[in-house]
Amino acid sequence: MGTEKNTDSKSISNIQGKRKMLPSVDELCKGIFKGDKVALARAITLVESTQIENLKKADTIIEKCLGQSTDSIRIGITGVPGVGKSTFIESFGKQLTSLGSKVAVLAVDPTSSETKGSILGDKTRMQELVKDPNAFIRPSPSGVSLGGVTRKTRESIILCEAAGYDIILIETVGVGQSETAVHSMVDFFLLLKLPGAGDELQGIKRGIIEMADAIVINKADGDTVKKAKLAEVEFTRALQLYPPKENGWLPKVLSCSALENRGLNDVRTMIFDYVTKHKKSNFFQLKRQQQNKNWLLQTLDDQLKFRFYQDVTVKAELENMIQEVVNNKISPFKAAEKLLSIHKN
Amino acid sequence: MGTEKNTDSKSISNIQGKRKMLPSVDELCKGIFKGDKVALARAITLVESTQIENLKKADTIIEKCLGQSTDSIRIGITGVPGVGKSTFIESFGKQLTSLGSKVAVLAVDPTSSETKGSILGDKTRMQELVKDPNAFIRPSPSGVSLGGVTRKTRESIILCEAAGYDIILIETVGVGQSETAVHSMVDFFLLLKLPGAGDELQGIKRGIIEMADAIVINKADGDTVKKAKLAEVEFTRALQLYPPKENGWLPKVLSCSALENRGLNDVRTMIFDYVTKHKKSNFFQLKRQQQNKNWLLQTLDDQLKFRFYQDVTVKAELENMIQEVVNNKISPFKAAEKLLSIHKN
Repeated sequence: MGTEKNTDSKSISNIQGKRKMLPSVDELCKGIFKGDKVALARAITLVESTQIENLKKADTIIEKCLGQSTDSIRIGITGVPGVGKSTFIESFGKQLTSLGSKVAVLAVDPTSSETKGSILGDKTRMQELVKDPNAFIRPSPSGVSLGGVTRKTRESIILCEAAGYDIILIETVGVGQSETAVHSMVDFFLLLKLPGAGDELQGIKRGIIEMADAIVINKADGDTVKKAKLAEVEFTRALQLYPPKENGWLPKVLSCSALENRGLNDVRTMIFDYVTKHKKSNFFQLKRQQQNKNWLLQTLDDQLKFRFYQDVTVKAELENMIQEVVNNKISPFKAAEKLLSIHKN
Repeated sequence: MGTEKNTDSKSISNIQGKRKMLPSVDELCKGIFKGDKVALARAITLVESTQIENLKKADTIIEKCLGQSTDSIRIGITGVPGVGKSTFIESFGKQLTSLGSKVAVLAVDPTSSETKGSILGDKTRMQELVKDPNAFIRPSPSGVSLGGVTRKTRESIILCEAAGYDIILIETVGVGQSETAVHSMVDFFLLLKLPGAGDELQGIKRGIIEMADAIVINKADGDTVKKAKLAEVEFTRALQLYPPKENGWLPKVLSCSALENRGLNDVRTMIFDYVTKHKKSNFFQLKRQQQNKNWLLQTLDDQLKFRFYQDVTVKAELENMIQEVVNNKISPFKAAEKLLSIHKN
């Protein structure tokens, strides 16, 4: 994927040189619909680009891919660093492909802009899955804000689905708002935990528990099998304290060993049961529709801000207004009014 | 304050009837500058109004009040329900007025819209302070969003300061984003805690500890004096684990009994020391300037959204676009583009 990234370079000769080699939007779409991984990767690179020309192409591709009706399951996977997300995804992904699914793995990584891709960046962590012809792994884009990452991940999901991937795994680390972002784009949200030492209920963000459709205790292997069982009981008890979800689903607690490949069958069965049940009740479809709506509203908010702060007349006056506000010469509200009045759409 | 609220009524005869009785903007400003509590309360009611005409008057008053240079200290006070915030503010406020300060008490209450004013609403909880001629207590406005409450509280601070109040206490409960909101408008942020039973470090949101300039363990009276001392040691140790604040301040831990009026001298001395030190280093002034700037940026964000969603052309098309997005007929981004293109400032 390194070559596509270069289209973001500002050197014109470079871009023009590459352009001849790059497939057209139509060619990319055809490739995606055929399930061609290279076309898919290139389309995602366009989505992740910061060049307006590339983004326009990406928009056209997204429009065409939206038209494809697919039957996918989007699964969010979160957990603190060290919980074994990569190993889990490797084992779980391989199980799914062995049963005939096509699996795409994406990531929302709020830390990537600082650490240059801390999750999924190192593909060697998923050595088996990366070689699997029915798996597609895409590291998180780096150097963009969380809002940007969210949009790009959502669009990458559309592309992967159009390419025939029917299970989309979206990994995130438990930092900042990334879990909320991932939760807002998946059908099923899975929280990975370690078998703790009596403190199973500590150090867990209240909001995360409420978001989880299931808690899976990983690394239930060797000496920790017993601990994991204890943790299962504690979490199950703790989850009963929460009000039931709007869909009536009672979040499940399971344990597994991704390393030893045990317990993953149960995880898969649980998720598939969830999907079957909620497709029947229509909740599955309604949730996706609500997510689409929220995505529109979020895009509107983002774009309103972007257009305002990019406006040259606003840019020219903003610093002056900030100074007046800072020095109590004008109230923030009056200053905002002035800036808004000079803003042209 | 009940009478002013009625100006929000939609009955024209009613408004016109009242209008004759209401003082002009100039009269209100004069009253405020003289320290007249009735004028101050009326001006705050204008700030809290939902009527555009009233808000315009409020803006004019705010502008005039901003011009008054004052020498105030803004103190945020937070803590879980039951920690004794009211008793603390009552005792602390009375100590301050007895030493010659004029004290205003405001509240940011994210729960007020549901519970119709859960904090400060019941003035009987501050029976002494409410009768004090040098104290002004204003319950939190109800029925407005957190963003709205934040703005209204910020503007109320300006009004109180123009009326000569030199200590502004802003109370909040530890719900949602209210602490962040209060933290963003004060010079000193104080976290009240109870003497716990060995679990002093649990149940405390990490973000709150990082925001606190001091932790004060309240209800250090009777049997719990020893517990409070233990909690003091634990918190002091815990605070050492955090990186130092940008101003070099090491958050302090104290204990007090607001009920028995003990330990409040130390709290006051600590806050005044903080202010003296950071005025000397200019940090105090810089922090206020940064807060003003942030307030402008937040107002811009709020107003951009408000104007967009109030736009009749947008209103007419929004539902249609939502439906198309929900049904995957158009991508959220394209839909957002369409809506933004029809939006007129």
